[in-house]
Amino acid sequence: MPPAPGDREARRQDVSEAVWRVLADKGFGGLTLRAVAAAMGVSTGMLMHYFPTKRALVAHALDLLERRTAERPRRARPAEGLAALRAMLLDILPLTADDTARNRIWVSSWDLALADESLGRDQADRYTRLRSAIRPHLEAARDHGELPATADPDQLAATAVAFTHGLVVQALFDPARFPPDAQTALLDTFLASIAGPASPSG
Amino acid sequence: MPPAPGDREARRQDVSEAVWRVLADKGFGGLTLRAVAAAMGVSTGMLMHYFPTKRALVAHALDLLERRTAERPRRARPAEGLAALRAMLLDILPLTADDTARNRIWVSSWDLALADESLGRDQADRYTRLRSAIRPHLEAARDHGELPATADPDQLAATAVAFTHGLVVQALFDPARFPPDAQTALLDTFLASIAGPASPSG
Repeated sequence: MPPAPGDREARRQDVSEAVWRVLADKGFGGLTLRAVAAAMGVSTGMLMHYFPTKRALVAHALDLLERRTAERPRRARPAEGLAALRAMLLDILPLTADDTARNRIWVSSWDLALADESLGRDQADRYTRLRSAIRPHLEAARDHGELPATADPDQLAATAVAFTHGLVVQALFDPARFPPDAQTALLDTFLASIAGPASPSG
Repeated sequence: MPPAPGDREARRQDVSEAVWRVLADKGFGGLTLRAVAAAMGVSTGMLMHYFPTKRALVAHALDLLERRTAERPRRARPAEGLAALRAMLLDILPLTADDTARNRIWVSSWDLALADESLGRDQADRYTRLRSAIRPHLEAARDHGELPATADPDQLAATAVAFTHGLVVQALFDPARFPPDAQTALLDTFLASIAGPASPSG
């Protein structure tokens, strides 16, 4: 008898959870049908029912990463300006165990994406979208005098993304040197430095 | 008859060159004996003379990455201060094809290093050394009035590394958006922002 639809959905969730655990532990470099099967305590044959190929497994893993990133809990977002940007960037940094796992998997995905034209384009587009989402906050900050009138929102958006992702990588490798409060302090100093002397809070 | 020592050395160079090409193209995720053998036009069996295991191949690849990074050509380095820091960070960014290949391989190595305790510690130590190499320039910059007297060299070293590596990643994925002059302009704006109003050149 085929499993009831509810069972099937529950099993799908189990599979995704196991894929996530393998990714968080070993990255895409360690993502194999065998590793996921072992994490679930099932046979590789059973798992091939879900993922007939390694490619299908990787595609599921990338979807899962996108979905969990989109659905992650986020801070209340101040309407605009540097406070909104600060909340956005705090939502990216590895400040909790879940954030750390997600970031670790993103960094791992870069190896894959740099080797594959289509995935590389996806990642370039993701960066473009992230900079575009940041830009209006920088424009508002400039218009409200939180940034110098000469500030270039395009440049600053790229700089803010660079700072944040570079901090992610350092923190992943050295969590003792970069606990959450150290990351937050670095972000605040960074924001103060781009605000410069024109900042009302500076 | 065994090959003459000179031949052996030449062959070793060929092997390293092929390993590098595979890494630059496919990253550590695509580094296999088969891929390196194909890049050299030899049999996998011949290559196993050099690398009896995948592990030996990866160890050689990591050594090669360290060595090529240490031996890369560098800019004339101004003695100290922000000008010295600028030269150091320009030497990291992917401004040429060789720099791009090397950075691409470093980013790829992060997936490997995050999955392996010993390699992860090596990478954390590498970051500590990089921040320590940057720090004296920031102290000199502060002492000479290029940075505000309140500047914290430890924090700024972490921030400068974060900015630089985060820019590396964005530029690798989107070289059209981040050609060399755009990367250099971003670096200069970043350095001006940490210098703040106390900078003689600001």
